Parts: sequence; C-alpha cells; structure tokens
Amino acid sequence: MFTDEYFMRQALREAESAYDKDEVPVGAVVVIENKIIAKAYNQVELLNDATAHAEMLALTAAFNFLGTKYLPDAILYVTDEPCLMCCGALYWGKVGRIVYGASDEKNGFQKFTSINPFHQKAIITKGVLQEECAFLMKSFFKNKR
Amino acid sequence: MFTDEYFMRQALREAESAYDKDEVPVGAVVVIENKIIAKAYNQVELLNDATAHAEMLALTAAFNFLGTKYLPDAILYVTDEPCLMCCGALYWGKVGRIVYGASDEKNGFQKFTSINPFHQKAIITKGVLQEECAFLMKSFFKNKR
Repeated sequence: MFTDEYFMRQALREAESAYDKDEVPVGAVVVIENKIIAKAYNQVELLNDATAHAEMLALTAAFNFLGTKYLPDAILYVTDEPCLMCCGALYWGKVGRIVYGASDEKNGFQKFTSINPFHQKAIITKGVLQEECAFLMKSFFKNKR
Repeated sequence: MFTDEYFMRQALREAESAYDKDEVPVGAVVVIENKIIAKAYNQVELLNDATAHAEMLALTAAFNFLGTKYLPDAILYVTDEPCLMCCGALYWGKVGRIVYGASDEKNGFQKFTSINPFHQKAIITKGVLQEECAFLMKSFFKNKR
C-alpha cells in the first residue's frame, strides 16, 4: 500500500487544493517511516511571498514538527520538478530522498545546473504519476491564458 | 552617505548579531529608495530550520512589509555570497539588484551553476566590504573547530 504512487497521490491532493485556490498547483508531502509528517501546497498568492513554494512550506512544517533541522530519514514527494530554490532547501535540510512527478522545463533545477544540486547522499526518483502531475499544471496555465 | 558600503555595513551588523547568538554570521538588508525596509540574520539554529538563511528571512519580511511578492525596485545586501536556495528566492522575488560581500567557495552559487541563476534583469555586485564579511565567517568557523 505504501508505494511511491500512494504518497505522490497525497501530494497531488495538495496540488489540487492549490489549484482550487488559484495557486500554481504544486503539492508536497514529507514522509518518515511510511507516515506523512508534513504536507503543503504552493501559497505564493495567499501569503504574497514568492518563496512560499510547496516544498519550502512542507520542509519548514517538518522541521517544526520534529524539532530538528535535518531530515536524513525523510522522503519528500512533490508533484513538480523542484526549482533551484527548493533544491537548495532540500540540500540544507539533508533530505534523504526526493521523489517528484512532472518535469519542469521552464523552472526545474535541471535547466540551471549540470551538477547535482541535492545533498550528496540524497536519492532522487522522478516521473512518479508524472502525467497526472503535469496535467494539473497544464490545465492551470491554459486557463490563465 | 547612502553608498553600497553604508548598507553593507548595516548587513554586517546583522551578521554580528548572528555571531553573538552562535549562528553562522550572515546578515542581509533590503533597501528601496535608500531606505532599509527589512533586515535579518541567519537563524538556522534558533528556528531549527535549515532554510532560515538571512536572505530568506529578509525577503519574507520585505514581502510582508510591502504587501507585494515582487521586488524589482529593491536592492538586497548580504554579507556572504548567496547559496543556490537564496539565489532561487531572489529570482522568484524578482529582486532588482543583489550586492554581496565575501565570496563563498564552499556553498556559494558559483560552485553549482555556470549560468546566471538570478532574474535576467537583476544586477549583481560582489566584493563590497568583502574582507570584513569574510573575517567574520572565518572567525566563526575557526572557533567551531
């Protein structure tokens, strides 16, 4: 039951909440030992803060919940390829594994850096539920035009 | 009077506050029309949050103060070369100009990316009061060993 798809679906639920609130639909959950300890969706508009990405909010919630600033045993699931800022946050937080859904050619980290921006011990998995994750983003931006 | 050195000195004061509180001594101020609208120092230990860098906290404070999520007319002064996360935050916030003091070979953005990670319109100035900024960092880490 506790597959990557399962947790990515929870991140997708977060992304759908963002969509409903007219935020760029990205969602994230932080998992430790098969339990979700933090979840968040993008709140750039609501908070009027360009840095309020789903990953940033989920990480800060996880740090607060655990009372620790490093998360080597955690997995962060996020529906969209992290941007440079979020990669940096995942690096500093020493997040052990990162799983993302859709690739993001415009803002994803791969556009900006040719070397691994994550922590050297981090394991990266991409493409989990990528079609559903990408579909939500496409629908959002299609409606914006 | 309102030179880059003047505002960097205010950022240095923030960095000194960090030093006094046993935080990595980095400070930042955000300036619009020669007025400091936000200032912060690194609070990773205090907040138990690996993302609580001076730039992140100063940016969020500036967004809150102005009620806007973009800062094209702002200058961010920071004592140390921004890391990848903070570059990303400055990119998303569309900060118009970034001035930093010391270079950071270990964690600065230049280690990770060969292309400009800042907003395409952003103007970057480096090396302002670099010796004083670097001295503070070196003293801090020397005492840690």
